[in-house]
Amino acid sequence: MLKAEITAKLRAIVGEKHYRDDQEALVAHSYDGTPMLQSLPDGVIYPSSTEEISQIMKVLSEYRVPVVSRGSGSNLCGGTVPSEGGVVMVMHRMNRILEVDMENLTATVQPGLITAEMIAHIEELGLFYPPDPSSMKISTIGGNIAECSGGLRGLKYGTTKDYVIGLEAVLANGSIIRTGGKLMKDVAGYDLTKLLVGSEGTLAIITEATLKLIPPPKAKKTMLAMYKDIYGAARTVSKIIESKIIPATLEFMDNPTIRVVDDFAKLGLPLDMEAVLLIEQDGDPETVERDIARIREICELEKADRLEVAESREEADRLLTARRSAFTALARLRPTTMLEDATVPRSKIADMVLRINEIAKKYNVTIATFGHAGDGNLHPTATTDARDKEEVHRVEEAFAEIFEASIELGGTITGEHGVGIVKAPYLEWKVGAPGIEVMRGIKAAFDPHNLLNPGKVFAKESRKRVVLQHG
Amino acid sequence: MLKAEITAKLRAIVGEKHYRDDQEALVAHSYDGTPMLQSLPDGVIYPSSTEEISQIMKVLSEYRVPVVSRGSGSNLCGGTVPSEGGVVMVMHRMNRILEVDMENLTATVQPGLITAEMIAHIEELGLFYPPDPSSMKISTIGGNIAECSGGLRGLKYGTTKDYVIGLEAVLANGSIIRTGGKLMKDVAGYDLTKLLVGSEGTLAIITEATLKLIPPPKAKKTMLAMYKDIYGAARTVSKIIESKIIPATLEFMDNPTIRVVDDFAKLGLPLDMEAVLLIEQDGDPETVERDIARIREICELEKADRLEVAESREEADRLLTARRSAFTALARLRPTTMLEDATVPRSKIADMVLRINEIAKKYNVTIATFGHAGDGNLHPTATTDARDKEEVHRVEEAFAEIFEASIELGGTITGEHGVGIVKAPYLEWKVGAPGIEVMRGIKAAFDPHNLLNPGKVFAKESRKRVVLQHG
Repeated sequence: MLKAEITAKLRAIVGEKHYRDDQEALVAHSYDGTPMLQSLPDGVIYPSSTEEISQIMKVLSEYRVPVVSRGSGSNLCGGTVPSEGGVVMVMHRMNRILEVDMENLTATVQPGLITAEMIAHIEELGLFYPPDPSSMKISTIGGNIAECSGGLRGLKYGTTKDYVIGLEAVLANGSIIRTGGKLMKDVAGYDLTKLLVGSEGTLAIITEATLKLIPPPKAKKTMLAMYKDIYGAARTVSKIIESKIIPATLEFMDNPTIRVVDDFAKLGLPLDMEAVLLIEQDGDPETVERDIARIREICELEKADRLEVAESREEADRLLTARRSAFTALARLRPTTMLEDATVPRSKIADMVLRINEIAKKYNVTIATFGHAGDGNLHPTATTDARDKEEVHRVEEAFAEIFEASIELGGTITGEHGVGIVKAPYLEWKVGAPGIEVMRGIKAAFDPHNLLNPGKVFAKESRKRVVLQHG
Repeated sequence: MLKAEITAKLRAIVGEKHYRDDQEALVAHSYDGTPMLQSLPDGVIYPSSTEEISQIMKVLSEYRVPVVSRGSGSNLCGGTVPSEGGVVMVMHRMNRILEVDMENLTATVQPGLITAEMIAHIEELGLFYPPDPSSMKISTIGGNIAECSGGLRGLKYGTTKDYVIGLEAVLANGSIIRTGGKLMKDVAGYDLTKLLVGSEGTLAIITEATLKLIPPPKAKKTMLAMYKDIYGAARTVSKIIESKIIPATLEFMDNPTIRVVDDFAKLGLPLDMEAVLLIEQDGDPETVERDIARIREICELEKADRLEVAESREEADRLLTARRSAFTALARLRPTTMLEDATVPRSKIADMVLRINEIAKKYNVTIATFGHAGDGNLHPTATTDARDKEEVHRVEEAFAEIFEASIELGGTITGEHGVGIVKAPYLEWKVGAPGIEVMRGIKAAFDPHNLLNPGKVFAKESRKRVVLQHG
């Protein structure tokens, strides 16, 4: 609990009812979308403006109180668990679309806005914001920016980072900075915009964002390709790209995922397939037809056992549901679902999936894998039970080995979920000791007293690398 | 001159002939593409590998010797003038394409490679690297990365930043870091890749880059639209974008530029026009035809006085030459050419051009304006004579007011040329005092002794803002 002196100051800023330290509020903000992590904050604050946040930060800074800013907390890396106590700052009151500028093709929004609501509004105006994280119906745009969320359209359109062109943010000391703007080009000093995207609330509190919008594609076509040979699926992915087609979506599900998804969504998927690819192309109608025809050819060449091209938007939605429900379907299997996002160069996908299977077997754990094949971003997902400490330990060891395998294949420990608490011990494997040192320096430059989301990104201790035995 | 002890150590690393401190070498590296800036270094070093650079930095760091890493020095912001002496590190020996990966669509290159040579090689392989700064025939990819170079295709395809997905770099203390990789998604810690792009050699020495490549467009069409009314041209730009067409190129030249370019390149341009737009669309053939037809309609609606659509690639090249030769043509007029890159939201282009004209008149200086209309990135270019101190002073005052106008219109002081020495006094106008403070903190985290390209980006003193009197 914070001193009465501090809470009085905070209440004076936001109003009596917008600072809470009752048990209900504390418990509700003690966890996020990540399994098995919980820590009570000292208070929860709901600001309504940048000015309020600036004042709040001056108080918290003076008393050295940590602050975790968050939207819906749908992240999977423990990114918004208040592991060192302090105040959780919930951005839901700052949830407005401030402007959609049709001449400059930009949207200026507040961080607490739900991403899917923003997208719906933008699409009504005939424009397009491509990043579509699976969480978008509940996650906020501020959270998406903090984590640099990806999604199913990342291959062709990039991720959140590629669409944030301006930010307003409050620093730990309460200063307000503005970066970028309605500008497609800006090289005035270091790129603080891209630095803040994906900084997981550890550098500044994002209070406003200017997003780049683009014209929407005129047509879209969706297909499923199913394979008895996982390498056939992987070769299909490579050959599509090599033949210079970049599909909007190029998703992968392995056999365990197919089974679970079909049981959940009753889609009539063939349960004897080792891999399913969900492929979507968008663009001008002629381009879409031509690309889908060529992709069909490649799938057939690589001996896809079944091909299904959606003839209507409803049919396409049914196929998309298969992939979109993967996480939910897997989460029903057992009490605890642990999902990671190891990412490799796309040419290494089949190798990575097979390595994941080997590792799962070695540790005797259940791991299903699905994900964004086109950009090498896989989601190995373990189903387990948090109450079984011994099994959870085996899952953690398996994931450590999966991270190591992905680094070994030229990949990274996290493609779109962020480091948070969960992957902090592994960060050094990817960026090396000098990389960590530089990042710590950047952190100190923004937040010298380590008040902004402390305990995230940087681990107290890095994991030692295992020497892998495989093959 | 450096102490013999230091030069001996440097020569031991790179070999006798790759460290020079003869007058010829010093003078040749005392300036860059920027007018009126010159400063002799103490030595010039030509490393051949990352390992050598790491060793060099350990020596320079120990003796606290500044270092300016550079490619061809074609920048226009004084970014590679060794204003505080020390060693100039020339990257031309590290000029290899290490790999083009056809499966992952990436190129891995050394920094000293000439950009146009790289592009030629990549295009031979049937792939596409879009950033095309006007300097590309002489500039290096390392220089492009350091300055985050733009170009004529920025509107549709983005700038250098959008294509750099991995870097190897040597820190001031000699440590080697590796960021990103052949990965379209990577959120492992802060985005050091994008932070280093555009950091102007002040944070680290880039020794290798992994670039994202894309499939090339199948067709391209080029046209010129000429206007007696500058607002007609500006409205055309806005209406093209509003009608949801993003052209590959959308360039602008004002009347003074048209006159000079025509005199230089004998293209038969109409000299009575107030504005010319050079428009290019690429993509699938049907899309290009449809877009160009629609753009024609918009140009006609906005009362373009003359329209010319190139019917062949040769004709298109002739039209492109008009725009590409603008700088060269202007540079012939008088001994000294000062070119800036104030950038505004694209909806403000006409306002900005008229403000530039007002300001030129007020200070009685000659300023021609051309640039990338589609992304609001203008190049007001003053022709003057460095020997006429009084006139040069007036030009500088005019540019200060142009920067101020661009900020006022929601723009920035530099869209693609970088801050360097020239724009350092104005940086605070764009990013504010807290922005400068954060950037200084980042600089200190990477380079605590201020050895990497000192005197750039950060000014000893920021300019006071003028209160504008206009309208």
